[in-house]
Amino acid sequence: MDGNSSETKEKIFNTAIALFHTKGYKGTTIRAIAASAKVNSANISYYFNGKQGLLEACFIRFFEPYIACLEEEVQNLSEEGLKRAAFRILHFQSENHLLSRFVWREVTVDSQIVREILSTYFMKERYLLKKLAKAWCGPGIQAGKLNFLMIQLKSMLSMPYLNSQYIREVWGMQPEEPYFAEKYGKSVAEWLDSIRQNAGAQPEPLLLETAF
Amino acid sequence: MDGNSSETKEKIFNTAIALFHTKGYKGTTIRAIAASAKVNSANISYYFNGKQGLLEACFIRFFEPYIACLEEEVQNLSEEGLKRAAFRILHFQSENHLLSRFVWREVTVDSQIVREILSTYFMKERYLLKKLAKAWCGPGIQAGKLNFLMIQLKSMLSMPYLNSQYIREVWGMQPEEPYFAEKYGKSVAEWLDSIRQNAGAQPEPLLLETAF
Repeated sequence: MDGNSSETKEKIFNTAIALFHTKGYKGTTIRAIAASAKVNSANISYYFNGKQGLLEACFIRFFEPYIACLEEEVQNLSEEGLKRAAFRILHFQSENHLLSRFVWREVTVDSQIVREILSTYFMKERYLLKKLAKAWCGPGIQAGKLNFLMIQLKSMLSMPYLNSQYIREVWGMQPEEPYFAEKYGKSVAEWLDSIRQNAGAQPEPLLLETAF
Repeated sequence: MDGNSSETKEKIFNTAIALFHTKGYKGTTIRAIAASAKVNSANISYYFNGKQGLLEACFIRFFEPYIACLEEEVQNLSEEGLKRAAFRILHFQSENHLLSRFVWREVTVDSQIVREILSTYFMKERYLLKKLAKAWCGPGIQAGKLNFLMIQLKSMLSMPYLNSQYIREVWGMQPEEPYFAEKYGKSVAEWLDSIRQNAGAQPEPLLLETAF
């Protein structure tokens, strides 16, 4: 093994992401990853168990911290949790923009591994999103309506990172910059405010006159 | 040439869409399209000038009617134009769900043809969307804010058709059904109402007392 082992592993992973990103998963060979990372192909087998293993590593390294953004907010459940999770997800994608773009693109494919992701990470995401959305909008919100709102939120959060080239070339913005995540996040937060108002949640806690 | 010529052309096109959809563009050969459509490969060259020509045909057949949804509303410009265009785009995608999913997926790739689409159809779309959004929100809306809103709208309209498998398996809804387009469209329309109110446009025309 050449060099420090965890360093080699990271080098392979980052090279693979860059190549998957430009040449696609199918268009990238183990040989090309080895040549570009300047490691022996045996190292890739050793650390990742080949190309399929690298793909799985991409999904795990994306979805574990992604789900954690939601999970931590659910564990410390408060009204503002949904909004904070939205900002965290935007910043996480901005910091990992190559990985994000690759992963969002790969999950649009019909494959065994994508079906597994749909039934694990995405089902968990749905559960956590609903928890946060109920804390945000109040328990009175209708279930069907909540589902559509969560699909809309998901769309808004992922699209600029999946279609980063479109955002750059058509709108002249850089989704990988923290500035974009912050400004765009504010626009998403305004929408969250409006759905909360429409759902009938109170913008401020009110003192209720009780006892008569 | 076998059979009626425009019938053969349609058969080739629809077979190609179905194969691109399941096997991807790169994973589909002219030979496979010819076999599945039960035509001679020479027919594919004749009508589409090969696989690249089929890809271009997919983009043209998607973006021409897609842009028309916006263009017709701009030509008969009214306040409600943006909302009507949103519903039309959802229904158009629902009626052409295989083509939509394939096209939305392909435009996430870096390639010469995608760069051409970004600089033609997507620039035109941006221009038309802004016109409609200004008519909807009133001229007072700040340009930077408008850009973010249009990115959000674009995300909401395309995501269920790009990620149709996700919508089906995680949320149990069928994006290809007109019922989905209608219900989901209502949720998008509510968002449009809220951005209009935030932009300060009047929900109802007001009679202004003038002259003093």
